Amino acid sequence: MDAAQKIQVVEKYLLAVSTDNLDLIREIYADNATVEDPVGTPAKEGIDAILAFYGSFKGLGVKLKANGSVKCAGNACAFPFTAQIGPRTLDIIDVFEFDKNGKVVSMKAYWSA
Amino acid sequence: MDAAQKIQVVEKYLLAVSTDNLDLIREIYADNATVEDPVGTPAKEGIDAILAFYGSFKGLGVKLKANGSVKCAGNACAFPFTAQIGPRTLDIIDVFEFDKNGKVVSMKAYWSA
Repeated sequence: MDAAQKIQVVEKYLLAVSTDNLDLIREIYADNATVEDPVGTPAKEGIDAILAFYGSFKGLGVKLKANGSVKCAGNACAFPFTAQIGPRTLDIIDVFEFDKNGKVVSMKAYWSA
Repeated sequence: MDAAQKIQVVEKYLLAVSTDNLDLIREIYADNATVEDPVGTPAKEGIDAILAFYGSFKGLGVKLKANGSVKCAGNACAFPFTAQIGPRTLDIIDVFEFDKNGKVVSMKAYWSA
Protein backbone atom coordinates (compact mmCIF):
# COMPACT_ATOMS: atom_id res chain seq x y z
CA MET A 1 0.00 0.00 0.00
CA ASP A 2 1.66 3.20 -1.11
CA ALA A 3 1.35 6.70 0.33
CA ALA A 4 -1.13 7.80 -2.36
CA GLN A 5 -3.50 4.99 -1.39
CA LYS A 6 -3.28 5.88 2.30
CA ILE A 7 -3.94 9.53 1.52
CA GLN A 8 -7.04 8.48 -0.46
CA VAL A 9 -8.35 6.60 2.57
CA VAL A 10 -7.77 9.65 4.77
CA GLU A 11 -9.68 11.85 2.31
CA LYS A 12 -12.49 9.29 2.21
CA TYR A 13 -12.55 9.27 6.00
CA LEU A 14 -12.81 13.06 6.35
CA LEU A 15 -15.66 12.98 3.82
CA ALA A 16 -17.42 10.02 5.47
CA VAL A 17 -17.54 11.65 8.90
CA SER A 18 -18.48 15.05 7.48
CA THR A 19 -21.44 13.55 5.59
CA ASP A 20 -22.61 10.95 8.17
CA ASN A 21 -21.84 8.26 5.59
CA LEU A 22 -21.68 5.01 7.53
CA ASP A 23 -21.37 2.91 4.35
CA LEU A 24 -18.12 4.70 3.65
CA ILE A 25 -16.98 4.20 7.26
CA ARG A 26 -17.64 0.48 6.83
CA GLU A 27 -15.52 0.45 3.65
CA ILE A 28 -12.61 2.12 5.41
CA TYR A 29 -12.35 -0.08 8.51
CA ALA A 30 -11.47 -3.76 8.82
CA ASP A 31 -14.08 -5.91 10.59
CA ASN A 32 -11.70 -6.41 13.52
CA ALA A 33 -10.59 -2.78 13.76
CA THR A 34 -10.26 -0.80 16.96
CA VAL A 35 -10.92 2.92 17.44
CA GLU A 36 -9.50 4.79 20.45
CA ASP A 37 -10.96 8.31 20.30
CA PRO A 38 -9.54 10.06 22.19
CA VAL A 39 -6.50 8.03 23.26
CA GLY A 40 -6.90 7.08 26.92
CA THR A 41 -10.58 6.13 26.63
CA PRO A 42 -11.83 2.56 26.13
CA ALA A 43 -11.38 1.40 22.56
CA LYS A 44 -14.36 0.64 20.34
CA GLU A 45 -13.62 -2.92 19.19
CA GLY A 46 -14.98 -4.39 15.97
CA ILE A 47 -16.94 -2.89 13.11
CA ASP A 48 -20.32 -2.92 14.90
CA ALA A 49 -19.04 -0.89 17.85
CA ILE A 50 -17.25 1.41 15.40
CA LEU A 51 -20.39 2.00 13.31
CA ALA A 52 -22.34 2.71 16.50
CA PHE A 53 -19.70 5.25 17.51
CA TYR A 54 -19.80 7.15 14.21
CA GLY A 55 -23.57 6.76 14.08
CA SER A 56 -23.77 8.67 17.36
CA PHE A 57 -22.47 11.79 15.56
CA LYS A 58 -25.50 11.80 13.25
CA GLY A 59 -27.26 15.15 13.16
CA LEU A 60 -24.50 16.98 15.05
CA GLY A 61 -23.25 18.50 11.81
CA VAL A 62 -19.64 17.42 12.39
CA LYS A 63 -17.30 18.75 9.69
CA LEU A 64 -13.74 17.49 9.41
CA LYS A 65 -11.15 19.42 7.44
CA ALA A 66 -7.49 18.54 6.73
CA ASN A 67 -5.09 20.87 8.52
CA GLY A 68 -1.76 19.87 6.99
CA SER A 69 -0.36 16.98 5.00
CA VAL A 70 -0.81 13.27 5.67
CA LYS A 71 2.43 11.76 7.02
CA CYS A 72 2.85 8.16 5.84
CA ALA A 73 5.31 5.66 7.30
CA GLY A 74 5.42 1.86 7.32
CA ASN A 75 1.88 0.47 7.51
CA ALA A 76 0.56 3.69 9.05
CA CYS A 77 -0.13 7.36 8.59
CA ALA A 78 -0.76 10.34 10.85
CA PHE A 79 -2.75 13.39 9.82
CA PRO A 80 -3.81 16.68 11.39
CA PHE A 81 -7.31 18.01 10.93
CA THR A 82 -9.93 20.16 12.58
CA ALA A 83 -13.35 18.96 13.68
CA GLN A 84 -16.07 21.56 13.72
CA ILE A 85 -18.99 20.55 15.89
CA GLY A 86 -21.46 23.39 16.05
CA PRO A 87 -19.64 26.43 17.45
CA ARG A 88 -16.75 24.30 18.72
CA THR A 89 -13.56 23.53 16.79
CA LEU A 90 -11.17 20.77 17.89
CA ASP A 91 -7.58 20.47 16.70
CA ILE A 92 -6.88 16.75 16.24
CA ILE A 93 -4.24 14.30 15.00
CA ASP A 94 -5.40 10.82 14.00
CA VAL A 95 -3.15 7.83 13.43
CA PHE A 96 -4.33 5.04 11.11
CA GLU A 97 -2.71 1.60 10.91
CA PHE A 98 -3.54 -0.42 7.82
CA ASP A 99 -3.84 -4.17 7.37
CA LYS A 100 -2.71 -6.09 4.29
CA ASN A 101 -6.05 -5.47 2.57
CA GLY A 102 -5.65 -1.70 2.83
CA LYS A 103 -8.29 -1.44 5.57
CA VAL A 104 -7.78 0.63 8.70
CA VAL A 105 -7.24 -1.84 11.54
CA SER A 106 -6.39 0.70 14.25
CA MET A 107 -7.36 4.34 14.67
CA LYS A 108 -6.08 6.50 17.51
CA ALA A 109 -7.20 10.09 17.94
CA TYR A 110 -5.08 12.63 19.84
CA TRP A 111 -7.03 15.59 21.16
CA SER A 112 -8.35 17.03 24.38
CA ALA A 113 -11.34 19.22 25.07
CA MET B 1 0.82 14.31 34.12
CA ASP B 2 -1.18 17.19 32.68
CA ALA B 3 -1.13 18.63 29.19
CA ALA B 4 1.14 21.54 30.18
CA GLN B 5 3.80 19.11 31.41
CA LYS B 6 3.62 17.08 28.20
CA ILE B 7 3.93 20.25 26.12
CA GLN B 8 7.04 21.20 28.13
CA VAL B 9 8.62 17.85 27.29
CA VAL B 10 7.85 18.37 23.61
CA GLU B 11 9.46 21.83 23.70
CA LYS B 12 12.47 20.38 25.49
CA TYR B 13 12.69 17.67 22.82
CA LEU B 14 12.62 20.09 19.87
CA LEU B 15 15.36 22.10 21.60
CA ALA B 16 17.44 19.02 22.49
CA VAL B 17 17.54 17.73 18.91
CA SER B 18 18.13 21.20 17.46
CA THR B 19 21.13 21.77 19.75
CA ASP B 20 22.64 18.23 19.73
CA ASN B 21 22.02 18.11 23.50
CA LEU B 22 22.23 14.44 24.44
CA ASP B 23 21.98 15.21 28.18
CA LEU B 24 18.55 16.66 27.52
CA ILE B 25 17.61 13.64 25.39
CA ARG B 26 18.59 11.41 28.29
CA GLU B 27 16.36 13.47 30.64
CA ILE B 28 13.37 13.11 28.32
CA TYR B 29 13.45 9.34 27.71
CA ALA B 30 12.92 6.47 30.15
CA ASP B 31 15.78 3.95 30.34
CA ASN B 32 13.56 1.31 28.72
CA ALA B 33 12.14 3.58 26.02
CA THR B 34 11.74 2.65 22.36
CA VAL B 35 12.09 4.95 19.37
CA GLU B 36 10.61 4.01 15.98
CA ASP B 37 11.73 6.70 13.52
CA PRO B 38 10.23 6.45 11.01
CA VAL B 39 7.44 3.99 11.82
CA GLY B 40 8.05 0.76 9.91
CA THR B 41 11.80 0.65 10.63
CA PRO B 42 13.37 -1.39 13.47
CA ALA B 43 12.88 0.33 16.83
CA LYS B 44 15.81 1.63 18.83
CA GLU B 45 15.37 -0.11 22.19
CA GLY B 46 16.73 1.27 25.43
CA ILE B 47 18.44 4.53 26.30
CA ASP B 48 21.88 3.55 24.95
CA ALA B 49 20.52 2.76 21.48
CA ILE B 50 18.45 5.94 21.63
CA LEU B 51 21.42 8.12 22.56
CA ALA B 52 23.44 6.54 19.75
CA PHE B 53 20.59 7.34 17.34
CA TYR B 54 20.40 11.02 18.30
CA GLY B 55 24.18 11.19 18.55
CA SER B 56 24.34 10.22 14.88
CA PHE B 57 22.70 13.57 13.98
CA LYS B 58 25.61 15.48 15.48
CA GLY B 59 27.07 18.03 13.10
CA LEU B 60 24.23 17.73 10.56
CA GLY B 61 22.71 20.98 11.79
CA VAL B 62 19.24 19.48 12.28
CA LYS B 63 16.69 22.10 13.32
CA LEU B 64 13.24 21.09 14.56
CA LYS B 65 10.41 23.60 14.67
CA ALA B 66 6.85 23.15 15.93
CA ASN B 67 4.31 23.30 13.10
CA GLY B 68 1.02 23.38 15.02
CA SER B 69 -0.18 22.65 18.53
CA VAL B 70 0.64 19.62 20.67
CA LYS B 71 -2.40 17.31 20.91
CA CYS B 72 -2.55 15.61 24.32
CA ALA B 73 -4.70 12.60 25.16
CA GLY B 74 -4.45 9.94 27.85
CA ASN B 75 -0.80 9.15 28.57
CA ALA B 76 0.27 10.41 25.16
CA CYS B 77 0.61 13.35 22.84
CA ALA B 78 1.05 13.89 19.11
CA PHE B 79 2.71 16.92 17.60
CA PRO B 80 3.51 18.20 14.11
CA PHE B 81 6.87 19.79 13.35
CA THR B 82 9.34 20.36 10.57
CA ALA B 83 12.89 19.05 10.53
CA GLN B 84 15.35 21.08 8.56
CA ILE B 85 18.45 19.10 7.62
CA GLY B 86 20.66 21.21 5.41
CA PRO B 87 18.61 22.16 2.34
CA ARG B 88 15.97 19.51 3.07
CA THR B 89 12.80 20.06 5.09
CA LEU B 90 10.73 17.14 6.36
CA ASP B 91 7.13 17.45 7.55
CA ILE B 92 6.76 15.09 10.55
CA ILE B 93 4.31 14.02 13.25
CA ASP B 94 5.73 12.42 16.38
CA VAL B 95 3.75 10.53 19.00
CA PHE B 96 5.09 10.33 22.56
CA GLU B 97 3.78 7.93 25.21
CA PHE B 98 4.69 8.80 28.79
CA ASP B 99 5.30 6.53 31.76
CA LYS B 100 4.21 7.28 35.32
CA ASN B 101 7.42 9.23 35.96
CA GLY B 102 6.71 11.64 33.13
CA LYS B 103 9.40 10.12 30.92
CA VAL B 104 8.83 9.28 27.27
CA VAL B 105 8.62 5.49 27.03
CA SER B 106 7.66 5.27 23.36
CA MET B 107 8.29 7.58 20.44
CA LYS B 108 6.94 6.97 16.96
CA ALA B 109 7.74 9.26 14.06
CA TYR B 110 5.49 9.50 11.00
CA TRP B 111 7.20 10.82 7.89
CA SER B 112 8.50 9.65 4.56
CA ALA B 113 11.29 10.94 2.38
